[in-house]
Amino acid sequence: SVNPDLGSERQTASFSVEKLMALLDGGTEQTQIRRAVVEAIESDPVFSRENQYFQTQNERYEAAVRKAVHLQKKMNEMGWTENGPEYKYIYRALSGDVAFLLHRVFMRSISVLGSDKQIAKWIPLATQHKLIGSYAQTELGHGTYLQGLETTAVFDTATQEFILNTPKISAMKWWPGDMGRSATHTVVFAQLYIHGKCYGIHPFIVQIRSLQDHSLCPGVIAGDIGPKMNFEHIDNGYLLLKNVRIPRENMLSKFCEVRPDGTYVKQGSQKINYFTMTTVRISLISDEVLTPLMKACTIAIRYSVVRRQSKLKPGEQEAKILDYQTQQEKLLPQLAAAYAFHFINDYLQELFNRGYREIQRKNFDMLPELHALSSGFKAVITQHCTAGVEICLRACGGHGYSLLSGLPSLYTKILASCIYEGENTILLLQTARFLIKCFMASNAGQPVPPSVTYLAAVKHGKCPAKNKLDFLSPDIYTEAYQHVAVRLTSSTAAKLQDLIQSGVKKHDAWNQCTVQLVQAAKAHCHYIAVKNFAETVEKLETKAGIQKIMKHLCDLFALHGIFSNTGAFLHDGYTSAAQMDMVTASYLDLLAVIRKDAVPLVDAFDFTDKSLNSALGSYDGQVYQRLYEWAQKSPTNQMSPAYERYLKPLLHNTLSKL
Amino acid sequence: SVNPDLGSERQTASFSVEKLMALLDGGTEQTQIRRAVVEAIESDPVFSRENQYFQTQNERYEAAVRKAVHLQKKMNEMGWTENGPEYKYIYRALSGDVAFLLHRVFMRSISVLGSDKQIAKWIPLATQHKLIGSYAQTELGHGTYLQGLETTAVFDTATQEFILNTPKISAMKWWPGDMGRSATHTVVFAQLYIHGKCYGIHPFIVQIRSLQDHSLCPGVIAGDIGPKMNFEHIDNGYLLLKNVRIPRENMLSKFCEVRPDGTYVKQGSQKINYFTMTTVRISLISDEVLTPLMKACTIAIRYSVVRRQSKLKPGEQEAKILDYQTQQEKLLPQLAAAYAFHFINDYLQELFNRGYREIQRKNFDMLPELHALSSGFKAVITQHCTAGVEICLRACGGHGYSLLSGLPSLYTKILASCIYEGENTILLLQTARFLIKCFMASNAGQPVPPSVTYLAAVKHGKCPAKNKLDFLSPDIYTEAYQHVAVRLTSSTAAKLQDLIQSGVKKHDAWNQCTVQLVQAAKAHCHYIAVKNFAETVEKLETKAGIQKIMKHLCDLFALHGIFSNTGAFLHDGYTSAAQMDMVTASYLDLLAVIRKDAVPLVDAFDFTDKSLNSALGSYDGQVYQRLYEWAQKSPTNQMSPAYERYLKPLLHNTLSKL
Repeated sequence: SVNPDLGSERQTASFSVEKLMALLDGGTEQTQIRRAVVEAIESDPVFSRENQYFQTQNERYEAAVRKAVHLQKKMNEMGWTENGPEYKYIYRALSGDVAFLLHRVFMRSISVLGSDKQIAKWIPLATQHKLIGSYAQTELGHGTYLQGLETTAVFDTATQEFILNTPKISAMKWWPGDMGRSATHTVVFAQLYIHGKCYGIHPFIVQIRSLQDHSLCPGVIAGDIGPKMNFEHIDNGYLLLKNVRIPRENMLSKFCEVRPDGTYVKQGSQKINYFTMTTVRISLISDEVLTPLMKACTIAIRYSVVRRQSKLKPGEQEAKILDYQTQQEKLLPQLAAAYAFHFINDYLQELFNRGYREIQRKNFDMLPELHALSSGFKAVITQHCTAGVEICLRACGGHGYSLLSGLPSLYTKILASCIYEGENTILLLQTARFLIKCFMASNAGQPVPPSVTYLAAVKHGKCPAKNKLDFLSPDIYTEAYQHVAVRLTSSTAAKLQDLIQSGVKKHDAWNQCTVQLVQAAKAHCHYIAVKNFAETVEKLETKAGIQKIMKHLCDLFALHGIFSNTGAFLHDGYTSAAQMDMVTASYLDLLAVIRKDAVPLVDAFDFTDKSLNSALGSYDGQVYQRLYEWAQKSPTNQMSPAYERYLKPLLHNTLSKL
Repeated sequence: SVNPDLGSERQTASFSVEKLMALLDGGTEQTQIRRAVVEAIESDPVFSRENQYFQTQNERYEAAVRKAVHLQKKMNEMGWTENGPEYKYIYRALSGDVAFLLHRVFMRSISVLGSDKQIAKWIPLATQHKLIGSYAQTELGHGTYLQGLETTAVFDTATQEFILNTPKISAMKWWPGDMGRSATHTVVFAQLYIHGKCYGIHPFIVQIRSLQDHSLCPGVIAGDIGPKMNFEHIDNGYLLLKNVRIPRENMLSKFCEVRPDGTYVKQGSQKINYFTMTTVRISLISDEVLTPLMKACTIAIRYSVVRRQSKLKPGEQEAKILDYQTQQEKLLPQLAAAYAFHFINDYLQELFNRGYREIQRKNFDMLPELHALSSGFKAVITQHCTAGVEICLRACGGHGYSLLSGLPSLYTKILASCIYEGENTILLLQTARFLIKCFMASNAGQPVPPSVTYLAAVKHGKCPAKNKLDFLSPDIYTEAYQHVAVRLTSSTAAKLQDLIQSGVKKHDAWNQCTVQLVQAAKAHCHYIAVKNFAETVEKLETKAGIQKIMKHLCDLFALHGIFSNTGAFLHDGYTSAAQMDMVTASYLDLLAVIRKDAVPLVDAFDFTDKSLNSALGSYDGQVYQRLYEWAQKSPTNQMSPAYERYLKPLLHNTLSKL
């Protein structure tokens, strides 16, 4: 039975939840496929996450391996393939709680970096799981700056082998997933030396464990890096190599080869490889970043209509906490952001598909723009969504802090997305470098990529809004965002030039501008996200109430951004103080409007109870009953040896006299 | 041996670290006492936290109980008493990793709420640990709003007993520390009923477990609430009462008594009790909030001078990451905040001591101000410090994400401080209510407490700064903060009045202003923190470089607040855009200045390696070696059954055909 406090929220939906779900899925057929996958996975007890919050790291690892192996069977059974329409829903249905994710990266890197011969040899072995692969790039002392990697691979012409070494502790491979306990092989990135000359970083296939008994190969020291904030199910590993010899054929050689005599030969363009790395940043957004935020919103919003606290009106029942403006102000902007980023993800996917088609035709012109967008949006979205999940957690008070709410593990997991696949600050500075370059180019009258043509159109006007309703006009707020992005880019470009002209060295000048460059990059992405949301709303069908509610969310996303960052808009007087008061008024008004549809808006994400795995967020809203039932199963409710050992002697005073 | 990259940072300190340490401790004698306590605790293997990151919740609980019992012996051995000068350092030295903290709350509540007779009976029993106490207030469905608690205590005149019940699941006690597995007794807060009439919430001493065999008492269902984001060492519990009878004497009756015939008698003033609750919020700041931030700063800053990444200057060695402006901008404001809040903590302690003396003299005039300050600062400091710890964690990249860095557990623990002892938003609204009241009173010419007299002095001037150096003048920035606090309070008061005058009901009007009221309360606290820091610096001795470096930190704290919140200062034109650019310039300049002393500034916090318990933050900076050594000890480096069960069959293809 559904908690009536939650049930009543669904009766007043201003739109069709099923229609919105289809929009999010990309069509009703997709919804059906998704649901079929979810049903198949969730009805299979091997994939259960029921005891997850009670398990140790060792237990989580074992479960993830069990699931990964079982998944292979399941896919065969169900007729699912890696290229089929179901595939993208499988990982989501498993909530990522499965091993051998790096095995796929191992395969992809061979496909992208290997010669045809290497692909023909290794891919079938990997596909049939005759080996388990990993991908060993990051080192203890080296992450982002690949050129700094210290592992060495010295070519020995006599034996036609590469000799791999970890010359010092900072060169130890550290973090690779599946490597701590599972992998038999890995792709090691190392500095290539031939006849004493360094040729830079290259990839090598290295066997690290016996295929017979899984013991470490000679010269290999490997293990698990230990406890982390999350990802208990993954055996992130370390790897130390001592004179490990591999045959010449094991250097992945699509782009460069070492001939038997030690001649180093470059071949082809590495640009497509570069494109691949760029797409990884986009591909993680949906599963690793948006899904957790959507889950957190679902949990926190459902809980906030079931939880009652204090009285809003004297003499009445305690109020639902979502009726408090402060609670709305915490949660509803996160909900709006989840939708905004869902739509920008669609936009980016489309852009990258286009980019891919161009690259197939050997046209690499789009690469710099794609790199800038993927870097910037990876950083902005992971940052925004991580903060959003934390807000949802805190908005649920003490119960949000219980692992049983599901929110802590969403938070500790999404947090990692700010760090992996490019640390966010560094990525934003990549975007900023592109912006500055394009800004200079525009100023010099040169053509620039479509996403930055607006930089040339510097307008010194003022925001034309006359009353608070004007701020519900997408033209008004989109233009304001554009203005800020241009101002931050142009003013930082000017500072940079001033510094250089005053004699500061280029790299020092750049460093002295980085705090502001980061701001400019964020403003650029924020502008594009707002513009894209507004354009998406414009194109929606006007029936079923979908366009109307999406318009509200778009307005909220835009106005929340202004309200939270008023200085950027006030700075040069583009927006006046009086206009800022209008923004605040419209923004607060919107909270009350969207609050009415908050539950249907999270219902449209269509998470099952099993996928939420939350005592607070279930569809029926029976929060307290579930918390109680769940807590009783905790291993902390078993007898503790602490009683016999310490409590009993203490209470019975048999402890040596205190 | 100290990592030379860390060692070199210490050689250039602009001030005496020992002198600064003495300032923070409140004198060199205090430093000596602190160090003696730390030495005694850390040299005792029972108190070791060495394996903490590898332990399960059950193991953590057992260790905490062991430590709590051992601590009693230790105190006897060392001659430490609860009233001695060592006491405040013990908890810090244990990093709070000890059980029976609620036993002290149990004792305090009896001392404050109990009659002399009750005190005489229960305090000796508790002191001698003939029972283990807890404190059962919060319920599954009720936290902040005490009047909403649902547990009932019905007086039975026939038997002279109270009959305690949990009438529904939402009334179950939930969260009390030490109650899940340890406590034999607890203070239960329940609605008192006599002859069918409800007299509101009262405290009752209830035995929940047998003193003989620790089994649950008849009618009592209790256990552990299961896994949480942190506090694995604490057995937060649940408690369900079914017709549990306790003698009439067990209602704590300092302020109200139920006579044998059921007559309800109120006596004395509860104001002093109210004061006690207020002081708890202040007392947690130092141990639970400042210490974690200081530890996080120590870890992140030491790591940031040892970690090298990318090249700042072409052709040179990779740079220390603390030399990047973006890294400085993440960490140094947190360091400044740690100092700012240390000094505001001193200020609050002093104010509360004064308040206590007044209250002893039956003068309760200071109570509203103390309540507003304790609420506001509890919220502002916990929020700021929690965000600060998270920034430190993220600034350490992947290694920060490892539990072995110590940062994840600092974060997950400090996060709870935003929720317990009053949820932050609710506390800020309490402060705001006080501000609005005082603002109205000032306007009506009535006297107001000292901390808010500034509200009357609304100035419509402009910031007089003419160049970036002017913003290093405390008068300039303190006045700017004051201006913002006044503006936010007065504009929200005006909005509130307008709404009410336009016919909106008072409670609705209040709710519609809460987002802005929260802003006003924060601005008030921020102003006081800046002002207090500036005044503290003013009073410091000018020798040994202490005043100079503290002045820089004060400037940074103030300018970072403006830089991060420019809109508030720009809004009504008090600060112009040109002035804001000066703020930015001065702020960024300061980062480079303070960066030079960053390591000595964290060294002054004087954390031992054992108390940091961090592979990244040790005094010698041997980060990589320590991470590797530590990881090898992880239980995840033991043989996993997953190999025999799943990996071997998979690799050997003995699994049923895939």
